[in-house]
Amino acid sequence: VIPITLLTDFGSQDEYVGVMKGVILSANPLASIVDLTHEIPSGAVEQAGWVLSWAVQYFPQGTVHVGVVDPGVGSSRRILLVQADGQFFLAPDNGLLSLILKQAKHSKVWAVTNRKFALKPVSQTFHGRDLFAPAAAQLSLGLDPAKLGPVLKRWKQLDFPKARKRAGGKIQGEVIWVDRFGNAVTNIPERMMGGSAKRKTQFQFAIRGRLLRGMQSHYRAVAPGIALAIVGSRQLIEIAVSEGSAAQVLSLQVGDSVEMTTVAV
Amino acid sequence: VIPITLLTDFGSQDEYVGVMKGVILSANPLASIVDLTHEIPSGAVEQAGWVLSWAVQYFPQGTVHVGVVDPGVGSSRRILLVQADGQFFLAPDNGLLSLILKQAKHSKVWAVTNRKFALKPVSQTFHGRDLFAPAAAQLSLGLDPAKLGPVLKRWKQLDFPKARKRAGGKIQGEVIWVDRFGNAVTNIPERMMGGSAKRKTQFQFAIRGRLLRGMQSHYRAVAPGIALAIVGSRQLIEIAVSEGSAAQVLSLQVGDSVEMTTVAV
Amino acid sequence: VIPITLLTDFGSQDEYVGVMKGVILSANPLASIVDLTHEIPSGAVEQAGWVLSWAVQYFPQGTVHVGVVDPGVGSSRRILLVQADGQFFLAPDNGLLSLILKQAKHSKVWAVTNRKFALKPVSQTFHGRDLFAPAAAQLSLGLDPAKLGPVLKRWKQLDFPKARKRAGGKIQGEVIWVDRFGNAVTNIPERMMGGSAKRKTQFQFAIRGRLLRGMQSHYRAVAPGIALAIVGSRQLIEIAVSEGSAAQVLSLQVGDSVEMTTVAV
Repeated sequence: VIPITLLTDFGSQDEYVGVMKGVILSANPLASIVDLTHEIPSGAVEQAGWVLSWAVQYFPQGTVHVGVVDPGVGSSRRILLVQADGQFFLAPDNGLLSLILKQAKHSKVWAVTNRKFALKPVSQTFHGRDLFAPAAAQLSLGLDPAKLGPVLKRWKQLDFPKARKRAGGKIQGEVIWVDRFGNAVTNIPERMMGGSAKRKTQFQFAIRGRLLRGMQSHYRAVAPGIALAIVGSRQLIEIAVSEGSAAQVLSLQVGDSVEMTTVAV
Repeated sequence: VIPITLLTDFGSQDEYVGVMKGVILSANPLASIVDLTHEIPSGAVEQAGWVLSWAVQYFPQGTVHVGVVDPGVGSSRRILLVQADGQFFLAPDNGLLSLILKQAKHSKVWAVTNRKFALKPVSQTFHGRDLFAPAAAQLSLGLDPAKLGPVLKRWKQLDFPKARKRAGGKIQGEVIWVDRFGNAVTNIPERMMGGSAKRKTQFQFAIRGRLLRGMQSHYRAVAPGIALAIVGSRQLIEIAVSEGSAAQVLSLQVGDSVEMTTVAV
Repeated sequence: VIPITLLTDFGSQDEYVGVMKGVILSANPLASIVDLTHEIPSGAVEQAGWVLSWAVQYFPQGTVHVGVVDPGVGSSRRILLVQADGQFFLAPDNGLLSLILKQAKHSKVWAVTNRKFALKPVSQTFHGRDLFAPAAAQLSLGLDPAKLGPVLKRWKQLDFPKARKRAGGKIQGEVIWVDRFGNAVTNIPERMMGGSAKRKTQFQFAIRGRLLRGMQSHYRAVAPGIALAIVGSRQLIEIAVSEGSAAQVLSLQVGDSVEMTTVAV
């Protein structure tokens, strides 16, 4: 049994996600469907791309990931099918998959043009149901991806902001996600710290005019209410507040600049 | 494997939905359970009925749909089992299923009176767990519906508002749902437009004192912030705002009147 | 097929829950995963313990329940594996399972110390993914619990407040949960009423300076807007308001004192 994951900005109040599952189960009654999240802010393609890039490594070979954050639905934007490092990805050609494609060692891209498996008629407003779900079901049943359309050599790239090294050993990054607990996830990967994140090297973070010192090993390593930096579960530096919300206490939001400096000890 | 769908006003904070799944899996360990939505406003039977009517066509033959929006739980209201066009439906006899029954080509109705499969004791407050879930599990295992109770000839009807043709080719409808994106779904079906929704005929919509002209093919066919009418994924006319929320921008809510006029071209 | 349930404070906006499911399905592709709830307030170990205690009786023998409300993640707190009355429980050693342990007729406790099945490297911030999910998957595949670590004789106890009998036949309890509908669930069990909850005995409840009389059989047994006491689906006394929210109308919240008196008839 191959999992199918769903990642959308559909929220939970409408029947949209349930109906996609109905379409999938109509074609593959044994499908194992996992919700990644449906709470991507409406139309936030970049945030969907980040989430997907963080999730893929925890799913088995062959998993079919469906990402429907699709503000251009019904326009002429294409639908991409990507095979990357042994997993499949379906998403609009709006950049959602460009991070996956950049990180993959081996990848191949198709445009989904064959409507043999599509629901009829295909609506102008809900391709998640009419095109993505049927294609995902077929892939989970073992369909050869080449049956869905021609190979593509170019697709829409989206600029996922990267942390950069600056003069004086500084690293310039930004907040790219605020999680449920109010932890501010930055785009500074642990490996940019030279593998020293867990050693005694001192780091200093400048964010919103504040300075934070040192890396902590866990959220409660400091007193309640105190801000800290930590290597989060996505292998990225997070700004957190012990027993509190960094987003609230420090007024952090996506896009805020974060500057990291290595401090001599 | 036959899917069982769940549609409730239970929200996501309590263990209610999870416990219904536990009861189902205790009887049928292989059940494939799909959440339609659990965010129906508390006690909003009519909205649950709409959602169910929009979802059923995407589920396979034999699917068991469980609708528990049940403000009268514990009173003497009956529980209905409906077989309609090859699918099963369990819901309180409060009108939730009346739209399904009206739209079905073939249907049969039973009262669920046999408590052989019920949890003991049956609580006064949670029939979703004690009566609906066990019955759904049995139906998914192939139980003959007649085993659950006697055939019914009458049940509670709920008036789902219908769009009406008026003098001068006008169509009078109303907003029946506001979706996650702030799109206002009306009860005017595409087919009422004479199949012309996709042709060049001009339409004009009067809503909240505003006039909208024309039908658009997709949400981004007009500039950001501009209101539009579109045939939505439920085959109903929706009022939307490009890259925005029609509900917010136009202050729309369920019950608002919508008048459609065909305009000479 | 053995169900695995997930109970967390992770909410629904991040990929956390989806990723735990990916880890489980990577080890056991046939796992049947049920969400109990992910809306436990951040770090509210006690509320997670209540929810779990209410849910277990509705799941089949062998079910593996995973409770990750884990503010101490990354610190030296242990991970417990409990076998209680035929079901398995994984949770941090922070008291989350102490109610389950208190209520169980037969139980056995292990510390999860074997990292053979853990993801590598184990993060400091997300043991739900790296330790709990792999262990749950193995248990659902039939792993002998003793393979995960040594038997424990002591663990952290959390004081779940108990209703107490007072002079004059009074019972002193408190509000321990407010559900989606605004019903205030107390810690006064139905059985404390001497089995008389359903008979004609009169009861009086003092809560927030108000007096409520009598027990009702269902929510709509009184007129809209009227407060009532009822035996809820958890076999606990609830304070509710007919067609309304007791939490709002009576300004109730977790921790509020409730005093029950038996009234002579």
